[in-house]
Amino acid sequence: MNRLEVTEMIVAAKIQKGIRWTDVAKEIGLSKEWVTAGCLGQMAFDANQASIIGKVFDLPAEAVALLQAAPYKGSLPTAVPADPLIYRFYELINVYGSTFKALIHEEFGDGIMSAIDFNMNVSREPNPAGDRVNIVMSGKFLPYKTY
Amino acid sequence: MNRLEVTEMIVAAKIQKGIRWTDVAKEIGLSKEWVTAGCLGQMAFDANQASIIGKVFDLPAEAVALLQAAPYKGSLPTAVPADPLIYRFYELINVYGSTFKALIHEEFGDGIMSAIDFNMNVSREPNPAGDRVNIVMSGKFLPYKTY
Amino acid sequence: MNRLEVTEMIVAAKIQKGIRWTDVAKEIGLSKEWVTAGCLGQMAFDANQASIIGKVFDLPAEAVALLQAAPYKGSLPTAVPADPLIYRFYELINVYGSTFKALIHEEFGDGIMSAIDFNMNVSREPNPAGDRVNIVMSGKFLPYKTY
Amino acid sequence: MNRLEVTEMIVAAKIQKGIRWTDVAKEIGLSKEWVTAGCLGQMAFDANQASIIGKVFDLPAEAVALLQAAPYKGSLPTAVPADPLIYRFYELINVYGSTFKALIHEEFGDGIMSAIDFNMNVSREPNPAGDRVNIVMSGKFLPYKTY
Amino acid sequence: MNRLEVTEMIVAAKIQKGIRWTDVAKEIGLSKEWVTAGCLGQMAFDANQASIIGKVFDLPAEAVALLQAAPYKGSLPTAVPADPLIYRFYELINVYGSTFKALIHEEFGDGIMSAIDFNMNVSREPNPAGDRVNIVMSGKFLPYKTY
Amino acid sequence: MNRLEVTEMIVAAKIQKGIRWTDVAKEIGLSKEWVTAGCLGQMAFDANQASIIGKVFDLPAEAVALLQAAPYKGSLPTAVPADPLIYRFYELINVYGSTFKALIHEEFGDGIMSAIDFNMNVSREPNPAGDRVNIVMSGKFLPYKTY
Amino acid sequence: MNRLEVTEMIVAAKIQKGIRWTDVAKEIGLSKEWVTAGCLGQMAFDANQASIIGKVFDLPAEAVALLQAAPYKGSLPTAVPADPLIYRFYELINVYGSTFKALIHEEFGDGIMSAIDFNMNVSREPNPAGDRVNIVMSGKFLPYKTY
Amino acid sequence: MNRLEVTEMIVAAKIQKGIRWTDVAKEIGLSKEWVTAGCLGQMAFDANQASIIGKVFDLPAEAVALLQAAPYKGSLPTAVPADPLIYRFYELINVYGSTFKALIHEEFGDGIMSAIDFNMNVSREPNPAGDRVNIVMSGKFLPYKTY
Amino acid sequence: MNRLEVTEMIVAAKIQKGIRWTDVAKEIGLSKEWVTAGCLGQMAFDANQASIIGKVFDLPAEAVALLQAAPYKGSLPTAVPADPLIYRFYELINVYGSTFKALIHEEFGDGIMSAIDFNMNVSREPNPAGDRVNIVMSGKFLPYKTY
Amino acid sequence: MNRLEVTEMIVAAKIQKGIRWTDVAKEIGLSKEWVTAGCLGQMAFDANQASIIGKVFDLPAEAVALLQAAPYKGSLPTAVPADPLIYRFYELINVYGSTFKALIHEEFGDGIMSAIDFNMNVSREPNPAGDRVNIVMSGKFLPYKTY
Repeated sequence: MNRLEVTEMIVAAKIQKGIRWTDVAKEIGLSKEWVTAGCLGQMAFDANQASIIGKVFDLPAEAVALLQAAPYKGSLPTAVPADPLIYRFYELINVYGSTFKALIHEEFGDGIMSAIDFNMNVSREPNPAGDRVNIVMSGKFLPYKTY
Repeated sequence: MNRLEVTEMIVAAKIQKGIRWTDVAKEIGLSKEWVTAGCLGQMAFDANQASIIGKVFDLPAEAVALLQAAPYKGSLPTAVPADPLIYRFYELINVYGSTFKALIHEEFGDGIMSAIDFNMNVSREPNPAGDRVNIVMSGKFLPYKTY
Repeated sequence: MNRLEVTEMIVAAKIQKGIRWTDVAKEIGLSKEWVTAGCLGQMAFDANQASIIGKVFDLPAEAVALLQAAPYKGSLPTAVPADPLIYRFYELINVYGSTFKALIHEEFGDGIMSAIDFNMNVSREPNPAGDRVNIVMSGKFLPYKTY
Repeated sequence: MNRLEVTEMIVAAKIQKGIRWTDVAKEIGLSKEWVTAGCLGQMAFDANQASIIGKVFDLPAEAVALLQAAPYKGSLPTAVPADPLIYRFYELINVYGSTFKALIHEEFGDGIMSAIDFNMNVSREPNPAGDRVNIVMSGKFLPYKTY
Repeated sequence: MNRLEVTEMIVAAKIQKGIRWTDVAKEIGLSKEWVTAGCLGQMAFDANQASIIGKVFDLPAEAVALLQAAPYKGSLPTAVPADPLIYRFYELINVYGSTFKALIHEEFGDGIMSAIDFNMNVSREPNPAGDRVNIVMSGKFLPYKTY
Repeated sequence: MNRLEVTEMIVAAKIQKGIRWTDVAKEIGLSKEWVTAGCLGQMAFDANQASIIGKVFDLPAEAVALLQAAPYKGSLPTAVPADPLIYRFYELINVYGSTFKALIHEEFGDGIMSAIDFNMNVSREPNPAGDRVNIVMSGKFLPYKTY
Repeated sequence: MNRLEVTEMIVAAKIQKGIRWTDVAKEIGLSKEWVTAGCLGQMAFDANQASIIGKVFDLPAEAVALLQAAPYKGSLPTAVPADPLIYRFYELINVYGSTFKALIHEEFGDGIMSAIDFNMNVSREPNPAGDRVNIVMSGKFLPYKTY
Repeated sequence: MNRLEVTEMIVAAKIQKGIRWTDVAKEIGLSKEWVTAGCLGQMAFDANQASIIGKVFDLPAEAVALLQAAPYKGSLPTAVPADPLIYRFYELINVYGSTFKALIHEEFGDGIMSAIDFNMNVSREPNPAGDRVNIVMSGKFLPYKTY
Repeated sequence: MNRLEVTEMIVAAKIQKGIRWTDVAKEIGLSKEWVTAGCLGQMAFDANQASIIGKVFDLPAEAVALLQAAPYKGSLPTAVPADPLIYRFYELINVYGSTFKALIHEEFGDGIMSAIDFNMNVSREPNPAGDRVNIVMSGKFLPYKTY
Repeated sequence: MNRLEVTEMIVAAKIQKGIRWTDVAKEIGLSKEWVTAGCLGQMAFDANQASIIGKVFDLPAEAVALLQAAPYKGSLPTAVPADPLIYRFYELINVYGSTFKALIHEEFGDGIMSAIDFNMNVSREPNPAGDRVNIVMSGKFLPYKTY
């Protein structure tokens, strides 16, 4: 058994049992974004969290152990994602990538927004012209230092 | 002359003259995100906006005309971006792509977040442990409809 | 079991039982294009539709549940499709892509044709010089808005 | 001078002079789709057509000669197009490619829709919920024959 | 069972039983080129042909049904083929591709040689300096038409 | 000046002067296939041939010298060719590649058809249903020998 | 069973039984280079050779039959090999490729070194500064002929 | 001026002046393989060697200086080389790569053949059945050591 | 069973039993870097080492035999690694690659740092601003020699 | 003028004037690693540093301005580097990538070594068996935090 198989077990159980990610997050007591990423094989759980996940999705002990190891991350099957929902984010980077770079450097100088010391929130933004997906990202600015 | 050359003229003028993107945006009266994307060859300006851009960056008439045509969009020189600042956004999609998909479908059903009916704001988020880059994205949810 | 396996079960059952896609569409009461795409793993069915599909193709309950989850979309095994029928569509984009862009921008301004708020119809067009494939596509125009 | 340079001369002249593709098509007396594709380097003009194009866009004699040679076709700079408008067509093939294949084979048997004996029409489809892009494609069905 | 598995069953049976492709073609009453391509998963057989193939290679009924569906075509595992025999054909296109294009356009004008309304013959050409492989290809010329 | 520039000079001169490849071949006294390939930068000419080519296309002495050096061969700008005429040959290899391999091995044993000790002829094949492109290829069979 | 599985059976048996490639070659009575390549799925054995290989590695009859079919050749899992030993050969082509081309053309004129009418020998070259790997390659020169 | 331009100057001068690589090597007093590689931009010359190269090819002082810097090595324009002569070497690695690995490990244990502490000789091997290209490579074996 | 399966058995056993790489290294009496690389399928163990690894991870005899064969090396599933921890090393090469080249050539002349006669040490570097990862690499400099 | 052109001016001046990177670093008063990376277009200089660089390499004012803008980073012309010196670092990641991941996670938990809050030192390590390249890297460990 490897981590990918654990992810497939979780996804299958979710559909069969009608479990919602937001409910799993509440059981863990953390954000739905981090918990879902963990369930989908992108984050490592601690022993207590893994045990809760194991109960929610009815996983065997071997799977619960695997949930506690740092996984090989990356959830795109191809360099350019084929799925339209995920592609739109890739398109945003393609169209706005140089803008992100220009504005962040203008405000902060040379450096990056951390993708590790990072959190985010995905929510519904009600709108009479059609509800919107609202995503707030927050990552620590890390400057390149001279040495 | 093509649009790429106009972008290079703008970038060169910006560095030589010490112009800031946020100041250009104020001249235009729109967000710094959309105006910067336009200056970097990703959006089309109307005649009035193009004329202001032309004055700010001292562009010839041919360049001002080109700013009003819809450009071939995309600002990444390679499918996987090499620049660390831009790569971090690609990494977020790689790590969180399946999470975006799972949470948006859970909340909205099958469909996507529009990358066209879309706006965003990049700002500094003060933090005693080191200031953070804060990005708010808002895109209309577009459902797949049956037919 | 994952969605890909459900698709393979459907395709195999279709061949063994001699079922036609157009008949499945009639059972569902929707277009043959949307229903076939759903059967081939590209659209999500609601509970009632999934139950009909399950009966038509004799699928187990687990498969019927999977038909109701939004799938990871994309049906090309390679970036450039090898199959001649599908390649011809790729070739049309290669040859006419810049034409699509030029004419749509000329008529509508900067923006795109939605691939989500979209429908289409594939039909036989009788012709004495050899019948023709007729495809009508209709997608909402989505303008880039300034902000 | 090569054909690519002729295309760039045409595109630049179009923007500087405010010429519309539909007007060029009327001068030639053919569809806007075929004429635009030709102007963008994808089709060969005959001597008379090339001469008209030359006058409209003020091209030198060498360019008019080049317009009459069959060009190396293909207008995508990368295998997967980066521009959002063109990408949506690629996405349609990705999502609906297997559906095209299934429905055309069901109706016609093994074979393809020709991309050569082919024509199409792009038009505006008025709609109170937002106008739509309407595309009608018609290509001769070519069956694989046994031999 | 899918078509790829049927191909593997045919190839395995051929080796175990010492069947020759030319003999299979005689049983079917068609060319060895088309019949071999069909056996290797590139063409669709009719019911009678499929039944003969099924007997020759001792295939189960499910496989015989699959032989009658139009397959997803393409027999190269990579874009540039690694096998030396198949690579030589790719090399011929690489070296002579622009020559094919130049000579066919000179003789016929803008258009293509059909790969669908196509047949070919592979034979041994006796030669005292070493026998040669002789390949005759014949494809209908399809002109690009103006519209 | 490099060989690619010589090729571009030849192609430009051909269009401007209305020269035909078949006439160039007659001047040289060899096949149109080999001579065209040489003019397009794929074969090396001897001093006498290069001098004739130089006169026909009005090339400078430096170009005539370059025509006599063995060129870096390969005329495809991408691994999978975008031009429809050239792509059809790639498609034939994709669809018939395993058939070529199967039939040549059946007739000759393990080995290849040479792409070096090779010649070919492209001609028009009159046909009431539409003329056809006829291509005859002949390459020496080269067996893998044990050692 | 396919040829790849036969290769894996041979490799596994070799390790378990401690068989050396050079000893297998002696049993066959041919060079270690050709015999090893055949065992690794790159050459076809005759009936007698296959039978010896079958005995040495304890292979089932089906595997012995497969050893006599011309395999789909190519032993690199990626276009650029990841394994350091194999990469060094790729690096030599990268660094010395243009040198090979320059020197062979200078000595022989336009043509190639055959990779089919080819043999080689890999041996240990004793050296006080550290033993060396010595590889002698010999391939027939094949000239491009005019026609 | 960069190293690539120096290489192009050398190649152009060689053709115009009819210089042979072997004669350049004699002037330098080293092997034709190493000297040609250096002239083609793959090795660094010392001051004296660079000065000789400069005289032979009539290079400006700036070029002579560049010849003494360690170049960015690699002479293949694509990962898989298109030129038939160079491709044959790539094919040898593809077909014999696993054989090289197997035989070198059998003889020497885990490690590689150095591509740095390496030399080679390309020569003509007379043969009544057609002369052969003979290549002798010698590279130090470098073992992986435990630590 | 192949080496990849042995690696998966080791990784699974490590997680289930809570074994630490540093403890395995102590059992073997070598560095944690080399021993971990070996356990992950990148180095070959001798008989004694393999036997210890077999006991620590409870491996079957077949696996212990496989640990002694030189493996096909390379642990990245894609050319550009997706996992953030491993990507950072790729990014360092991307950003500092030309710097490594410039400084090593300045100090040592033309040549490389060996990746074979190489060792390294990964350790924790305590730091009040947050502990650091410290990596010391040492590889023999190998000069390109003239010949 | 763009940053790439500034890099080429610096590299050309360095060779023509015989400047050493280590001397430039001393002028700036920082490490040779960071200063060289900056000169090669990977880091941004402040006004004072840029002015010194400008004097050392005799750069025009426009170039000095460009040195102060954050560059688009990345110095590899291809995803897998062709140059042997740089490739060896890529190979180390390929061979040791999973080991880096395993050991860093074992010591620090889930997270990464920063490539931004990072410094390094390249030096000569004298050794009687041949001097070695010694590289010390130090990057802050950044843990993934739950949220």
